[in-house]
Amino acid sequence: MRATVMYGAGDVRVEQVPDSTIKLPTDALVRVAGSAICGSDLWPYASRSPQDAPARVGHEFVGIVEDTGRDVTTVKKGDLVVAPFAISDGTCQFCREGLQTSCAHPEAGFWDMIPDEGGQAEAVRVPLADGTLVRLPVAPDSALVPSLLTLSDVLGTGHHAAVIAGVSNRTRVTVIGDGAVGLLAVLSARRLGAEQVILMGRHPARTSLGREFGASDVVSARGDEGIAQVRELTGGDGTHVVIEAVGTMPAYQQAVGVVRPGGVISRVGVPQFEDAPVGWGSLFRHNVRLAGGPAPVRAYIEELMPDILDGTIEPGKVLDLTVGLDGVPAAYRDMAGRTVLKTLITP
Amino acid sequence: MRATVMYGAGDVRVEQVPDSTIKLPTDALVRVAGSAICGSDLWPYASRSPQDAPARVGHEFVGIVEDTGRDVTTVKKGDLVVAPFAISDGTCQFCREGLQTSCAHPEAGFWDMIPDEGGQAEAVRVPLADGTLVRLPVAPDSALVPSLLTLSDVLGTGHHAAVIAGVSNRTRVTVIGDGAVGLLAVLSARRLGAEQVILMGRHPARTSLGREFGASDVVSARGDEGIAQVRELTGGDGTHVVIEAVGTMPAYQQAVGVVRPGGVISRVGVPQFEDAPVGWGSLFRHNVRLAGGPAPVRAYIEELMPDILDGTIEPGKVLDLTVGLDGVPAAYRDMAGRTVLKTLITP
Repeated sequence: MRATVMYGAGDVRVEQVPDSTIKLPTDALVRVAGSAICGSDLWPYASRSPQDAPARVGHEFVGIVEDTGRDVTTVKKGDLVVAPFAISDGTCQFCREGLQTSCAHPEAGFWDMIPDEGGQAEAVRVPLADGTLVRLPVAPDSALVPSLLTLSDVLGTGHHAAVIAGVSNRTRVTVIGDGAVGLLAVLSARRLGAEQVILMGRHPARTSLGREFGASDVVSARGDEGIAQVRELTGGDGTHVVIEAVGTMPAYQQAVGVVRPGGVISRVGVPQFEDAPVGWGSLFRHNVRLAGGPAPVRAYIEELMPDILDGTIEPGKVLDLTVGLDGVPAAYRDMAGRTVLKTLITP
Repeated sequence: MRATVMYGAGDVRVEQVPDSTIKLPTDALVRVAGSAICGSDLWPYASRSPQDAPARVGHEFVGIVEDTGRDVTTVKKGDLVVAPFAISDGTCQFCREGLQTSCAHPEAGFWDMIPDEGGQAEAVRVPLADGTLVRLPVAPDSALVPSLLTLSDVLGTGHHAAVIAGVSNRTRVTVIGDGAVGLLAVLSARRLGAEQVILMGRHPARTSLGREFGASDVVSARGDEGIAQVRELTGGDGTHVVIEAVGTMPAYQQAVGVVRPGGVISRVGVPQFEDAPVGWGSLFRHNVRLAGGPAPVRAYIEELMPDILDGTIEPGKVLDLTVGLDGVPAAYRDMAGRTVLKTLITP
């Protein structure tokens, strides 16, 4: 079968690899119907060392179950399923609490733990299939598939950012970052009733989609000027919630600059740093809270799917390029160059 | 009148100063009946430069209203009152939301903003008296006064730490620090129903009081050994809530080490640093939240006072030394040397 392999920064190849197969009784083998390139795939694409062993890539996909191990009970051959970006058993204490990204099972974790599997491929072995996979009640050729694919990561991640920040109809929200997660955080904040959603982003095509998803204001300036503009839009106080969907230090500093006293900075962009200001001069003086982490998207699928099925939300609009596997290397280049927002791969 | 003045590290003096008087129509003049030395007073006592101008000190006190400006309506001459450690107007948006420490009034803030007033003195001018002061329904010689004095800071601060962390009867809590705030965080977590409260502290007299306040376990080890012991007490997972009541980097690192995935680190010790680990390796990977700041104790007085008046809680037990003003310099030495937990001053 063919699969995407990352060799180093800027070096993504589509190659012939050994076929994925069932290895454990809890596995499912999924023939990929659609997968996506994630903004977080662009970090290794920017910085991966050629000394690192080549690795398969892709953690957002939908597909058809082709085979299941003997212990799998919740999905069966022929089902169209979506795979969250974290593998989880669905039964441990953390899974039962809805924190599947901290599942205690030894096989649980992120796809990069499994170097010989990845979603940007023709097929994938999915461990802990009962806990991980969710059946989709549509045909594989449904027009809803792109939107349902976003349940694997970016929609659930935007939703997580809004949920953990406690967004309600009394909340003003700033979203920093106009990537797919930022835009779907806009959609999610609106879906939860946010009174005002200010999107900070610089790419007109993306911020237009942000307005379509419910942004009430767009601020394209960054740094001190961007902070001043958000403060002006909020009577000087900043917003109760700031969703930081980038992960860089300038984005974090911007979040500190626009958050209201007593508010919360909710982070879903993987931080590209370890230490950051949290003391008297940044978070502490005004009781600003910091939240966030990898989204347990599995916990949100049942809540979000009906809104996709009935057309209330169309998160698949973030997918603005569709390619076959052959088009993957070019799609990486275009996403890194910011000419493409997010790529749908139909192997 | 006489008042405590801090000159520099290790140099606290009690001196004759000009009498405090009403200056603005919203002021009250309070004759101090009891004040306290706070753990946070020990930071400048440890490090204040002799180049800094001498400053009055003390932000925890109860006293009798001696005079009021013409606009003051909620307290009157002869009332026994308690003063929270933050001055607030009680009417702005933040005060109405219960975040009086972020009051928007230009006169609002902390006592150190007013260099010629302080609670460790015979009398104090209290700005914004209507928003700040709360009448106490007991006589000035009541045995409850030490406990009621803790409403000014340390009880409300311990309570704040537990409240913002969402402590409930399903919560396991670690409290780091056996100072007055740590011990009252133990009491507060128990009062809110915490299932387990692990106190990390090294002073047997203090941890004994911690057990009396409801600590189920005491861990005296610090660093990696202390972390390992807390994990052992919690089946390996750590606690849902960690209250960090110290403010040093080792205490923060200990908090990161014992918090459960999805849990919250609630900080009420003033951080003695600005940058700290918050990235993938500390908070982000397991969705650990960071909360805390100066406690809006004014918001909690009406809730906590009845429990003191009916004897349900006795937070005044943290005051283990009583001195007159003459005894203040020695009391600072003893608190800094950790032979005294907390000092009550009866001028």
